[in-house]
Amino acid sequence: MSSSSLEQMIEALKCLPGVGQKSAQRMALHLLERDQQGARRIAETITQALDTVRHCGKCRNFSDSDLCDICSDEAREQNIICVVETPADVLAVESSAAFRGRYFVLLGRLSPLDGFGPAQLGLEDLERQLREDGIEEVILATSATVEGDITAQYIADFATRQGITSSRLARGIPLGGELEFVDGGTLSRALTGRQQID
Amino acid sequence: MSSSSLEQMIEALKCLPGVGQKSAQRMALHLLERDQQGARRIAETITQALDTVRHCGKCRNFSDSDLCDICSDEAREQNIICVVETPADVLAVESSAAFRGRYFVLLGRLSPLDGFGPAQLGLEDLERQLREDGIEEVILATSATVEGDITAQYIADFATRQGITSSRLARGIPLGGELEFVDGGTLSRALTGRQQID
Repeated sequence: MSSSSLEQMIEALKCLPGVGQKSAQRMALHLLERDQQGARRIAETITQALDTVRHCGKCRNFSDSDLCDICSDEAREQNIICVVETPADVLAVESSAAFRGRYFVLLGRLSPLDGFGPAQLGLEDLERQLREDGIEEVILATSATVEGDITAQYIADFATRQGITSSRLARGIPLGGELEFVDGGTLSRALTGRQQID
Repeated sequence: MSSSSLEQMIEALKCLPGVGQKSAQRMALHLLERDQQGARRIAETITQALDTVRHCGKCRNFSDSDLCDICSDEAREQNIICVVETPADVLAVESSAAFRGRYFVLLGRLSPLDGFGPAQLGLEDLERQLREDGIEEVILATSATVEGDITAQYIADFATRQGITSSRLARGIPLGGELEFVDGGTLSRALTGRQQID
């Protein structure tokens, strides 16, 4: 290797998820050989994001300001809140365009062994918001895993105590899914949750 | 999307080769959520590389200084030169640890239709180096494509005129390659170039 700045850049790019030595090398050489403008943009936007992005004081999602765009958007339904695990989940639900309420981002899921208890997930704050913000329904969109289920159950419990409806995302066959490729557990849930045709 | 700095960062990461919207999103969220130090390092090393890295005045490879580490390493053989297409090829040959001479990086291959003629590849400079630097052998490690072959032939021609030996990398079955998965062209070259066992 003849260039130590290049070496350092390759080493740094390996911090990206799923990027090893070969990909990092290809990325670094691509940027230097063919897209120096893109390289400059990557460096600038990362620096800018690191300096600007914080957590929204209300929903805990990433935001440029103390209150994120969704929380400060008065056109959105204020009485329904969707609880998700990560900022990526917010993007996923937003891309479905099927939800127009608020979010609450746990930034994790209940997992005491990993140090994720109710405090780390901001559950006290969520409980206060349910109590004070006139929320009528909580959609529990945590992941379909044991820990996601436990987290959802924990939140459902305190929502119920406050007389708030809580719901869980439907489980079943994904759109375009062919039965023979669907696992037994999913199929079992899809059968249990079968819906009558009018 | 609730954060416009984050949006810009995702957009910029799409400049990386093989990275689309989903991967860029995953990378950006990973860096912000779990590896802010890595993110800082990526931004800094890219900026540093853009400001520092230039082409070596002798071999045209990327370098932090006017003469790259390989060209300025007097322990390397000075009379044998390996001609490659890209800086990535230099890394590949170096990783083989089977070559201890100098390099010349064409930064392309002869392809008049794409605007790559002898001038763009620095071939006059290479010809001058062959004449003046006491080179005894040129290894033509351009790629095994029609354009790579033409480029190699062009260089071999002017090397021969100066009485310098030129060679091409051996073609054949890759190490660990099983015959049934090797394409016909490669197999044909491997047969033609078969080597007698002593």
